[in-house]
Order: sequence, then structure tokens, then C-alpha cells
Amino acid sequence: MRPDLSETLLIALDRASGVPALRQVYLGIRQAVLEGRLPPGARLPASRALAARLGLARNTVVAAYDQLLAEGIIEGRVGAGSFVSRDLPKEPEPPPAPGLAAPAAAASLPPAARRFAAALPATGSTAAAACNTGRTSWDPRTAQLWRSLTLRHLQAPSLAMLGYADPRGSAGLREAIAAYLRAARAVRCAPEQIVVTAGAQQAIDLVLKVLVEPGDQAWVEDPCYPAVRAALGAARAALVPVPVDAQGLVVAEGVAAAPQARLAYVTPSSQYPLGVVLSMARRLELLGWARQAGAFVVEDDYDSEFRYAGRPLAALQGIDDAGRVIYIGTFSKVLFPGLRLGYAVLPPALVEPVLGARLLSDWHPPALVEGVVTDFIAEGHFAQHLRRMRQRYRAARDVLVAALQGIPGLAAEAPEQGMKLVARLAPGFRDTEVAAAAARRGVIARAVSPMYLAAPPLQGLMLGFTGHEPAALRRAAREIAACLVPGAAGRPAAAG
Amino acid sequence: MRPDLSETLLIALDRASGVPALRQVYLGIRQAVLEGRLPPGARLPASRALAARLGLARNTVVAAYDQLLAEGIIEGRVGAGSFVSRDLPKEPEPPPAPGLAAPAAAASLPPAARRFAAALPATGSTAAAACNTGRTSWDPRTAQLWRSLTLRHLQAPSLAMLGYADPRGSAGLREAIAAYLRAARAVRCAPEQIVVTAGAQQAIDLVLKVLVEPGDQAWVEDPCYPAVRAALGAARAALVPVPVDAQGLVVAEGVAAAPQARLAYVTPSSQYPLGVVLSMARRLELLGWARQAGAFVVEDDYDSEFRYAGRPLAALQGIDDAGRVIYIGTFSKVLFPGLRLGYAVLPPALVEPVLGARLLSDWHPPALVEGVVTDFIAEGHFAQHLRRMRQRYRAARDVLVAALQGIPGLAAEAPEQGMKLVARLAPGFRDTEVAAAAARRGVIARAVSPMYLAAPPLQGLMLGFTGHEPAALRRAAREIAACLVPGAAGRPAAAG
Repeated sequence: MRPDLSETLLIALDRASGVPALRQVYLGIRQAVLEGRLPPGARLPASRALAARLGLARNTVVAAYDQLLAEGIIEGRVGAGSFVSRDLPKEPEPPPAPGLAAPAAAASLPPAARRFAAALPATGSTAAAACNTGRTSWDPRTAQLWRSLTLRHLQAPSLAMLGYADPRGSAGLREAIAAYLRAARAVRCAPEQIVVTAGAQQAIDLVLKVLVEPGDQAWVEDPCYPAVRAALGAARAALVPVPVDAQGLVVAEGVAAAPQARLAYVTPSSQYPLGVVLSMARRLELLGWARQAGAFVVEDDYDSEFRYAGRPLAALQGIDDAGRVIYIGTFSKVLFPGLRLGYAVLPPALVEPVLGARLLSDWHPPALVEGVVTDFIAEGHFAQHLRRMRQRYRAARDVLVAALQGIPGLAAEAPEQGMKLVARLAPGFRDTEVAAAAARRGVIARAVSPMYLAAPPLQGLMLGFTGHEPAALRRAAREIAACLVPGAAGRPAAAG
Repeated sequence: MRPDLSETLLIALDRASGVPALRQVYLGIRQAVLEGRLPPGARLPASRALAARLGLARNTVVAAYDQLLAEGIIEGRVGAGSFVSRDLPKEPEPPPAPGLAAPAAAASLPPAARRFAAALPATGSTAAAACNTGRTSWDPRTAQLWRSLTLRHLQAPSLAMLGYADPRGSAGLREAIAAYLRAARAVRCAPEQIVVTAGAQQAIDLVLKVLVEPGDQAWVEDPCYPAVRAALGAARAALVPVPVDAQGLVVAEGVAAAPQARLAYVTPSSQYPLGVVLSMARRLELLGWARQAGAFVVEDDYDSEFRYAGRPLAALQGIDDAGRVIYIGTFSKVLFPGLRLGYAVLPPALVEPVLGARLLSDWHPPALVEGVVTDFIAEGHFAQHLRRMRQRYRAARDVLVAALQGIPGLAAEAPEQGMKLVARLAPGFRDTEVAAAAARRGVIARAVSPMYLAAPPLQGLMLGFTGHEPAALRRAAREIAACLVPGAAGRPAAAG
């Protein structure tokens, strides 16, 4: 359906030009038609409305339309108004976009532009194909509640919903988040320390803006979450890869390599991508270093809400007494990614800087969505949604693990929490090649080895099990198995 | 209403510890109560649900609850479950937030953090008080359409609405924006050049990310829109103030001061805050310089949709043949600011870099809102909404101008377009002092002189007339008049 934009048509009347108004209206519309701005079949403004807008007598506009009609540029339909003639060339060539004629432009891009262009391939796929990570379920009960809460807010829109609002996010949502984090993650925080963001990625972006000068050192886990590695690279941080063992980040290696780093980015609840939990001894060691070095620890708690077994550790933030930990969370996993809602819990000294960065980034979160989420939590639906999803995701995990077990060349264990697992490949397989073969078969199995910076890479596949039907997970396992049989496209003849 | 977060309660079972599970459950809940994570009156998880979550027999959890009941830590209500006792201290002191004990932290902030903290006061108020700028009207017809379109999308949510989506924004919305800009602003663009953003501010943020290295020179209009000046400062650009005369930006002065600047930020349709239109001669001069210098021109077309009289000029972007202009627009003015939706039209060479920056900033726009706006445009409601608002805003403009005319010490003319006007003060008044006096009387009259960098400042008040009732505008004019009478608090005894 083509939108009717006639009301917005740009016609420039110049009263000082000496050209009669009738002719200016005629020429303005004719030019818009010839340039394709008014395509064939497009409706013209009603003569009365256009006259009012241009401050002309209606007869003047009618006379201009008559002339256009006479020339066949427009056509009239009785009772339906005037339209651009369909006898003109059907779709005039769109005018050349600026710059298309200047292929040299890309070569002369500013250095920052080249850095950000390079960031594009580091990011994930958005496809719904089986085993893509980050997908969530949306059951009828939640969908129905969501509609009714949204309608409630649209029926009585607040000033904040319509106008500009608090850059921190609404007070109600920050209180709800603080209560949830205190109960569920033992985070110690007041609502004043919380900034509501457009997902965890914006929280990371804001934190990097206020912490990183070009050249500053930043510890990252090795392997590391690619989007954070790319964001640090674009911010011109000097990446310091710190290896990960069975206890998580090897803090001593970070201290040895870069004792004066500005920050450390960590995923203590479930290391991304390996799933290791950072041990209590390492947590204390990391906080001790941060306190002494005046460094900040960015705790990305992206995947802690869905716990199926075993012993959870409270958030790192809860045992930080020196104001060094920035805690980052998201509603993308517990609700849905398209919501674009997350948060950062900040040490008090960083609240003002991050709010400044937030204002200059995009002012504030959209208040409608904040209101819906606040009510969803406050009225108890959130806890029930989490319980239903935990059951569903646990079942999906079990389906995928059962389907993967017994596939030669691949070892998969059921993770104790989260929404994905890493299946390790036997020697002789390269994960990038298996991933490419799987993609050709419609399965997104992300290779783990490219997430390494310096440490010897594990060859493994990251497989999401949430938001996919059991049948799709079983089919995905069969496709992956087919990539691993000797002689399959995915198995190199002489790899290793 | 206190949310029921019991389902999310963090209880860490350590099966290897040798401590019986019953005692671990008891201690875990007791600790959560004493730390205030479970406040008085909070509901405990149902014993069956908690047992399932922890992988314990239900009897074990029941026994732990019995012990807590016996100690008075929790209380049971027949048929209603178990709750934290209300006889405990009513609201346990929240644990100290991290960092509150470290006042030295602020002094040791990284330099970037200090830059962004300084940006805070540069930004505007979000209040609904009379004459605050940036407010829009929301009439019953639009509100009803908005509800029905939102419900439509919530009833059949797309994969993009629930999951991760295109960082450029939806194809449908980009097509609708391209058609609108071609018709209304003579912008030359394909949907592939458009990036949908969280308002114009995010478009500016992304553009600065990909263009500006610390120390790069950036032309700004003098006076300049404060949020852009702050964003450039935070990005460590070297600001080059270029004066504005009756034809707009004095390009020759910019060329003389900084011929090799990286970019120029301009508001050609209506200079912010003065309202001057950049003349065609200056437009050609500006584009000629940008082409020769390899500089980019950031065209912020923030205020062009509501035109009441006079001759509009097409967008600068439409006459750029060299791919140097970045066109920025927003739905904040034509719909409402709380929507958080805007866009940038990019020269092709900048599309990939900006998309990289967008992904690393916050991935993509929220698809629900995109879908609603797309339908709102495609089904013709947008053009009708613009027409209704144009009438309403023109009437509001006339009310305010009539109320201001005749106030001694103040000169106000009706602007030909937009949503605000600048009233000039007579010699002897300082706008900052009048603005402060007006604020004490509940009127937001932004002083213009602080928006200047180097040029001799105009003393004036920026007054928004949209989104305010006529009675409120008349009252505001009376309050401003009261600030200007001799001897009033707002009039300094010996100013000038």
C-alpha cells in the first residue's frame, strides 16, 4: 500500500519572485511528478486544503490543477479527487542517490568510520533458524497480559509517555528492578543507582563512553563475547586477553599483564561462551585488584535468570565494598529481545557521568514500554512468566542434549543454567567449517574458536535451545550430525 | 504495590558442603529476610515450587518453612501461603550502597567520565510547564488510531518484534520515511540509505561516533543547539563557532577559521534557536566547501514539518551531488517525543560505518513501535495528523504572539514555521535573569544568550507554543510581563 503523502507535498511559493501564484503551483506539482516525488497514481492534495495551506484563493489552485489535467500530467476521478496520471512512465527512475557517483568516498572515510564498519561482521545473526541463540518463547498467557497492560497505558498516557522523560528511566521501573535484583541476585542497590537502557548493549556502550580513553587497557576474558570485544575495539581500548580456566578468569594473569588497566569486562555467573562460573576465590581476587588499581569491573550478568540445577552464586556486585563494580542486566532474555530494555547498576560516583552520556546518546527510554514492564513485574506476572519459561527452557535443553548425545565427534553436556550450550568437537574438526556446513543446512551453530584472542582455542559450537520447538532442535541435531560424518562437506580431509 | 518476587529468590544450595539441605533452605531464607532482600509482608515461594526449583523433596522445604514459622521469621495465612513476618523491624535499613563510603571516588574519575558529567546541565527540562519547548498535542483521533494499530501488532507479533531485528530499522518503515522525505522535503534517498534511530539525538550520536576523532574540528552555528554542542564536546571535537546572520551561517567565516574541519553541524530550515533560513547562496557555498574539503555537513531538519506561511526551501540534502550531507530527522515533533524514533539519511559510503556504530550502541530499534508508525503513515493517518496539528499549532502560535505583543521590553514576531519563537529583550534586560524569574513563576522561558559561543549574544527568550493550552500560554505571557516591569525581581537594577 502506497502511503498518501500529498498533504506533506513540498511546494515552494515565492511571493517576491513576480511569478504568478497559479504558475508556481502548476510548476511545483509538475516538477514533483517529473522527479518521481509524486509517483503515478498518487493522490493530489484537495484543492481546498492546498489553497488553505499556501494561503491562496481556492480558484487559483483549481486553475493550476486544470492546466495539469489538460496536459495529462494529472487525472481526475469523479468524487475521488485528482491523481498523478498513470500514463506517465510507470515508475520514473529514482534520482541517483548522492554519493553513488563518488566511489572514492569510501577510501577517504575518517578513521573512526573505518573502525565501526569493521565492527559489522563481529555481530550475530538475527535469524529464527534452529539453534540461533538469544531467542525466547512468548506464550499465550504472557501475550494476553502484555496486550492488556499496553492498552491500559495507551488509554491513559502519562506526560512521560508522550513528552520527554527522565534519562534514568522511570522511577517505578527502577524501583521494580532494584527489588528484583536484591531478591534474585543479592545485588546491593538503590533505585538512584540504576539507569534503564536500550538493552545490555547500550549499558555497555554508555559505560565504555565514560570510562575509556583511546589507549586505555581493558581486560577481557579469552574467549570473549564478540560484541563487547568489537565495542572496546571501536572505542580504541587496548585489549588485554586474560585466559579462563575451570574457575573462570585467571585474575593473576591479568594482574601480571596489565596491573593498571582501566577496566575488566567479565561474565561471572556463566562465562561467555564457555559457561564456567567464576569461583569465590577469583571473585575476591578480582575485587581486590580493582580496589587497589582504581579499576572498574563490568559484570555482565546476561544469563543468570534461568537456573536448572546446582549452586548459584550471588552477583559479584553484592560483595563489592569499594564501588568498583558496574552490574549490567537485560530484559532480552527474561522477556524478549525486541523489547530493547536493560539496565546498569552503577557505583554512585558513575551515576552522573553515565546519565550525561545517556542524554547525549538518546535522551531516555520509551516510557510506554517502561510502564508495561513495571506493571508486569509489580503485579506478579513476571515471577510467574519466569517460572513457566524455566520449565519450558529446561525441557528444551533436555531435548537438545538428548539429541546431541551419541553423535560421533561431538560432546555436549546439559548446562546448569542459561539458554545455550557449547558442544565440543573432537580433534580433527574445525568449528568454523562445521558451522559453515550447518548454516548451509539451515542450522545456526556458532563457532567458538573465533571468540578467542590469544589462548589456544577450543573447537566448539554454541547452540541455543530456547525459543525453538523440540522438533526443530531434534532436526538441528540431525543436521549437525550430518556435518560430522566422515566425508561430509563440513569435515576437512586433513584438518586439525 | 509491592511486586511478588518470591519466585526469583536466590537460595544457593551447596550439595558438597555437608550441610543438610533443610538447613541450607532455612538459612538462605533467614539471611534474605535479615538483609532486607525479602521485606516484611513479602510472599515466600510455594513449597512445592521451591522444592521443584531446588531439586529437593517437598517435605524438606516444608520442614524448613516450619522452622522459620516457629521462630516467627515467617507467618502463614490459611489458604494464602507463607509470608515474611510483619513483626520484624518494619523496613530494615537497606544495606549501604557500594561506593557511598568512598567519597574520594568522584575525584579519581576517568577523564571521559568527568566530560560526560559536565554535559548534564547543558540539557533541557522535561517539565510540562508552560512554554517549555518540544511538547506536542495528542488528540483523541490519533490516540484511538494508535491504540488500534498497537493492538493489531501485539495480536500478531512478528519475529522481529519479539527477537533481534535489523539494525537499520524495518524495511517497511524505511520505505515509508523515504517516500515521505522525497515528497515533503525533496530529499533524494533510497531506503537503503536510511537508519532508523532512537530520535534525532541518537542519529547525531552515531554520526559523531563515526566521524570525529579527538581534536577534529567541527563547525557549529553560533548560537548553537546546546545538546549538539555538548555531544561534540564530549567527543573531544574542537568546536569552531561560525556566526549566523540574516542569511544563516556565514560560510566564509567558517572557511577562514577552519578550512579543513571534519564536519559542519547546521539547521538550514530554521536555525536553532534564531529561526533564520539558510539562503540558497549560502547553501551552495557550504556544499562547495564540503566537497572541496572532504568534510561532511550534518543537516538537522528538526523543525520543518509545520509551516504556516512563506516560502519553504527544500532540504540541503536534495541539492548535494557529492555525498557530503547527512540528513537527520525525527518523529518527536510530528508525533511525540516519548516515541523515541528518528532517522538519518546517509551518504552511501557512511551506511556501513553507522550501522556498525548502531549495532554496538543498542542493536536495533524496537520493532513494535516501528510497525505502528509504518502503518500510521502507510494508511494515510500521518498526513491527516499533520494537517490537524498544523491548524492547532498555528492557532497556538497566534495566541502566544498576541499575548506577548504590547509587553514593554519584549519583541515577539510570529515565526513562519515550527513550534517555538524567540522573543527579543530590550536593552537593559539579561535573558538569564528573566528566565530565572519566570521559572520561579512556573514558566519555562529558555535564555538564548547561553547558546552563544563567541558571537555577541542576543538577549532573548525561547518560548514553545505547541502542546500547551491557550489559557496556559496567555497566563505565561502575563507572568513574563510581570518579570519585566521596572523593579521586578527579574530586572536587574543596573543591567546591560
